[in-house]
Amino acid sequence: MKIFLPIHKPSNMPHIALPAGYPGIRSLFMYSPVTAAPLNHLVQTLLHDPATSTLTPGERELIATYTSSLNQCKYCASTHGAIAKYQLSGDGKLVEDVVRDPQSATISDKLKALLKIAAKVQQDGKQVGETDIAAARKAGATDKEIHDTVLIAAAFCMFNRYVDGLATWAPEDPAVYDAIGKQRATEGYMTAPFVIK
Amino acid sequence: MKIFLPIHKPSNMPHIALPAGYPGIRSLFMYSPVTAAPLNHLVQTLLHDPATSTLTPGERELIATYTSSLNQCKYCASTHGAIAKYQLSGDGKLVEDVVRDPQSATISDKLKALLKIAAKVQQDGKQVGETDIAAARKAGATDKEIHDTVLIAAAFCMFNRYVDGLATWAPEDPAVYDAIGKQRATEGYMTAPFVIK
Repeated sequence: MKIFLPIHKPSNMPHIALPAGYPGIRSLFMYSPVTAAPLNHLVQTLLHDPATSTLTPGERELIATYTSSLNQCKYCASTHGAIAKYQLSGDGKLVEDVVRDPQSATISDKLKALLKIAAKVQQDGKQVGETDIAAARKAGATDKEIHDTVLIAAAFCMFNRYVDGLATWAPEDPAVYDAIGKQRATEGYMTAPFVIK
Repeated sequence: MKIFLPIHKPSNMPHIALPAGYPGIRSLFMYSPVTAAPLNHLVQTLLHDPATSTLTPGERELIATYTSSLNQCKYCASTHGAIAKYQLSGDGKLVEDVVRDPQSATISDKLKALLKIAAKVQQDGKQVGETDIAAARKAGATDKEIHDTVLIAAAFCMFNRYVDGLATWAPEDPAVYDAIGKQRATEGYMTAPFVIK
């Protein structure tokens, strides 16, 4: 049985006429399928596919969540926070700890160093310095893991601006994000939106 | 006859080991083909395909150039500035005028209003207000054109951070950008890099 998520009334109106009942980027994917295709392909490759990175999907979702939190994008931070939780065996406290302060969270030194790089990218790519890269290497990060971190943080500077720049609907109910998180952690990003199986 | 662009010595070293002789994002596309595929697909759809937007490719390249200029990304601003020039029948002065001050450039009121929105998106998507949207609509912009503007500006906040966050090589020689500009304006983004026919 498939249950569609309930339709909430948005607290603010989006800047353009978007399909009703779909929150955040999903309303934009319904509105513009021609750009949704490469954007979904990108996020599937960056965050979900096990073969495309030596960072785990959980680590990659934490980088996306942390970047979205720094950009104060409620929809993306809540959604990817919930996906990260399910990728990390349900450890929601770890996700909250990382969002609050990565350096005091119970994560590897490598991920701490990579999240420092992500925070620099969120401000401006040129902020990333040789010392940041050296610290990540010393903690065990490979070139490819540094690359993936920079691109994930950069990509969420896009997704966050796309979602907020058009004032899309960010649901208030945490259960909505939890349901999306469970679905995406299991299915990835290429399946139909908002269906809880 | 095909002539490959000359290989220049980078003035700074990239943060990770990238293929030599390829500038900017092209070195990243060679390094990571798995993410290059959706990124190239995205930029082709956003900027080049005539059927995907009622904004002309020249207008879309100006939005990309202006956003990249605000992010002070030399490689992207120079490359898309050159592509914009070729999309605008060779009018390089117009591109320079838009980068300097869109509101005094010889462009439509609609494009002026859309570039104001792009500048807000470059800072933070939440900066885009109802008055910005109303001004764009009054100048004749459709919902789809507002959508495309927000996504182009957001996407270049990603591309700029990807290029600068890994300290890729930005050539000094303007002729390199001019050659890339001519190629991309003609061929789009899906063909092999750096070949002047």
